[in-house]
Amino acid sequence: MKRASTGTGSGKVGEAVLDSLRERIGEQQVLTGAEALRERRHDYWVLSHLQSWRDEPLPLAAAVVRPRSTGEVQAIVRTAIETGTPLVPFGLGSGVCGGIRPDPSVVLVDLGAMCRIREIDETNLLASFDAGVQGLEAENAVAQRGLTIGHWPQSIAISSVGGWVSTRAAGQFSTAYGNIEDIVYSIEAVLPSGELVQLGKAPRAAAGPDLRHLLMGAEGTMGIVTGVTLALRRQPQQRAYSAYYTPSLSAGFDAQREIVHSEWLPPVMRQYDAMEVVRNFHELTRATANDRGLLLLVHEGPSARVSAELDAIGAIAKRFGLEAAPAEVGPHWMAHRNHVPSWRELFERNLVADTIEVSAPWTRVEAVYDAVIASLREVDAVVIASAHSSHVYRTGINLYFTFVARHEDSAEMEATYLGCWRRVMEQTARCGGGVAHHHGAGRLRKPYLVHDLGREGVALLRRVKAALDPQGLMNPGNLIPDE
Amino acid sequence: MKRASTGTGSGKVGEAVLDSLRERIGEQQVLTGAEALRERRHDYWVLSHLQSWRDEPLPLAAAVVRPRSTGEVQAIVRTAIETGTPLVPFGLGSGVCGGIRPDPSVVLVDLGAMCRIREIDETNLLASFDAGVQGLEAENAVAQRGLTIGHWPQSIAISSVGGWVSTRAAGQFSTAYGNIEDIVYSIEAVLPSGELVQLGKAPRAAAGPDLRHLLMGAEGTMGIVTGVTLALRRQPQQRAYSAYYTPSLSAGFDAQREIVHSEWLPPVMRQYDAMEVVRNFHELTRATANDRGLLLLVHEGPSARVSAELDAIGAIAKRFGLEAAPAEVGPHWMAHRNHVPSWRELFERNLVADTIEVSAPWTRVEAVYDAVIASLREVDAVVIASAHSSHVYRTGINLYFTFVARHEDSAEMEATYLGCWRRVMEQTARCGGGVAHHHGAGRLRKPYLVHDLGREGVALLRRVKAALDPQGLMNPGNLIPDE
Repeated sequence: MKRASTGTGSGKVGEAVLDSLRERIGEQQVLTGAEALRERRHDYWVLSHLQSWRDEPLPLAAAVVRPRSTGEVQAIVRTAIETGTPLVPFGLGSGVCGGIRPDPSVVLVDLGAMCRIREIDETNLLASFDAGVQGLEAENAVAQRGLTIGHWPQSIAISSVGGWVSTRAAGQFSTAYGNIEDIVYSIEAVLPSGELVQLGKAPRAAAGPDLRHLLMGAEGTMGIVTGVTLALRRQPQQRAYSAYYTPSLSAGFDAQREIVHSEWLPPVMRQYDAMEVVRNFHELTRATANDRGLLLLVHEGPSARVSAELDAIGAIAKRFGLEAAPAEVGPHWMAHRNHVPSWRELFERNLVADTIEVSAPWTRVEAVYDAVIASLREVDAVVIASAHSSHVYRTGINLYFTFVARHEDSAEMEATYLGCWRRVMEQTARCGGGVAHHHGAGRLRKPYLVHDLGREGVALLRRVKAALDPQGLMNPGNLIPDE
Repeated sequence: MKRASTGTGSGKVGEAVLDSLRERIGEQQVLTGAEALRERRHDYWVLSHLQSWRDEPLPLAAAVVRPRSTGEVQAIVRTAIETGTPLVPFGLGSGVCGGIRPDPSVVLVDLGAMCRIREIDETNLLASFDAGVQGLEAENAVAQRGLTIGHWPQSIAISSVGGWVSTRAAGQFSTAYGNIEDIVYSIEAVLPSGELVQLGKAPRAAAGPDLRHLLMGAEGTMGIVTGVTLALRRQPQQRAYSAYYTPSLSAGFDAQREIVHSEWLPPVMRQYDAMEVVRNFHELTRATANDRGLLLLVHEGPSARVSAELDAIGAIAKRFGLEAAPAEVGPHWMAHRNHVPSWRELFERNLVADTIEVSAPWTRVEAVYDAVIASLREVDAVVIASAHSSHVYRTGINLYFTFVARHEDSAEMEATYLGCWRRVMEQTARCGGGVAHHHGAGRLRKPYLVHDLGREGVALLRRVKAALDPQGLMNPGNLIPDE
């Protein structure tokens, strides 16, 4: 990995470019002060934080621009086209795969000043937002009307609705409410050509390929998402929790599969391995867990349906040898679910850690789990390797691995970190899983996308990118594997 | 409309091309006999049938090729690339928008010989098919294992699984089970470059843009779909029916909206206007309908959930002034739902007719209905203009218009037909609806796609097409609006 390179090889952004930007969107929207650049020199990627903590030189963008409107984004793209200046779209910086690594050859487009709630339509259950609206503000705005987006990524308080779309995010309640691609109604975006598109006009369409999917998951490489309309739900009439100890991962997966194959869809269904039960629920479970795993469910919907679901799932649990776990487990998870670790605190304790989410069909998931955990444990420095699953589909399930490695000398952390990632990616692919469930690709997963897409799929992605962005202006170096 | 032109302007396919094809896939797979060409000279589009019935000259493809494997499709594409020969992919010919209009400059690729059921995976609920497998055969194959695809287009007995994907089809049970984009797990396709892609490896992925969507809805313009893997469901534990008279369309829509906003999802929920009640259910309803509309529901799922749903929907119906309709209505619809009219029979009775499906957010749907019906009635020849809705979403609903026009002189039918289409498209767009719910675009809707995509969206579609298919080899003249 060429660290901190955007892959353009082009030079520094000149003063003429900045003058053009200042003229078009106003001087105050063009920031070149060290603090503004430093604050946006990377996203939440562990490796960027590690390098920063170790005082390794991290390059800065030439400037940060803060458009206040879609029109200003178009003006910025116009300058980029005219001057051949690459742009790095930046939401709220919560990405964890290195989608944001600017350098002096680029201008960073911070969408944080585009934070208007445009419209909430209670009849059609639609809400339109500027791309920069923070997730929790969006949710709170619709919650005041008794509605919900139903999209609860762990990052909800530090991510933007535009970021959700750009990274193909998944929320904790996805099993019932879907992932972001199931929630997006329309996308407003400025293409690398400078054109403004509004894609998605109807509840459903068969009007050629669904072009919204060119932007969903593109991580800023196909244009700049400026606005998002999301489909809403009413807040559920009832919420209930249930929790069961699982005698084995296998029994837990079998029960989960039976639940969704029987057409029950509790929005949250999380299975923790025995290690993660201790790490997350020790106070509540130490007397009863006996080294078992745990299946935690949240049920939502009309009361009558929730009742029927609780009964049916209780019967399934019994059939698969699951036993009731303490009732407080669910509410405890709800209360603490968005705690995000501080990488810096870990580094200071000589630890480097990350979570890696993959997915697999039901018949492959145990093999993926076993192979990944075994491979991580081969690494001398690794002190923790564990997993839970958090998103369930009729066709399979995700796995969310955690690894923690210890090094007295922080200089060794980067190689260990990248080595652990390589192991998880390669073992997952070898066992028939998909290497990227919901954190996106960024620079971190870029070399491994070929496992999901195949060589021809990667070539197709490159071809689409070249067609939309022939000058390579949009977040160069991110996502799209090099030839 | 340049009738029967593929838009390529290129000449006739030469003998050298046919020799290359014969060499690569075998002589018996290359058909040039008049009957083979005539059988595949158009799809189920009314206008093609009308022209054919009137003995207007309809051009034929230079040849029909019948590949038996994905490898043979690749071989055909290789010949196409080397010789600059356009290809028209052909499933089972049930399209109704003119996606198939070959001429002597093209070779038609009939996928009907690719009809293998590749695998049924009962654990992961996945079934893989050759693209040419007929829909009902696919459904019957999984039904033998107690499973269902849950995708029931009216054309199920005359359409192929590859066609479903290529046209972004919708099934009658979509309200619970989703449309084809919700059912597709992976797509195997030969791109215009000749490369074979296998897109979709995991239950869900955030591995860049979801490239499956370049092929879904592309109607053969972005490559040839050769294989499809669909996600299955278990057959439901219980099925139940209910039916209500609606005092007005408005009350019916309000009740339907309340049902889905309360998170009940009966797979089938169809509202018929008063005219269509007479047309479809006269025997059953003549004593009680009193010029009212009708809401017909099919409920499926675990018995406990079906019971809860029936109760909840009964209460909603009452609240909105709906009254019980005869119980036989639902089973009657089930038994007759896939009857497709014979255009020819209508022509012989001096009638030309079609159905046109659009969609709209809830707040626009009545305006669309009123404007379209009023506009159709302005046409002197129109004798019937009516509608029902058949697909419900939280954000809105579709409308399925029927028009019938009468002309003693069949020479007048084409202009009336196209005029009626124009009225429906333009009134729908003017009132804020989407012009294409699920029949796709073909040549018929091509001029109206701009209403959904905007000019910039159409330009984007063209750009993607040019990138994937720079030689313009794939179904030229179809779908993609001209510049």
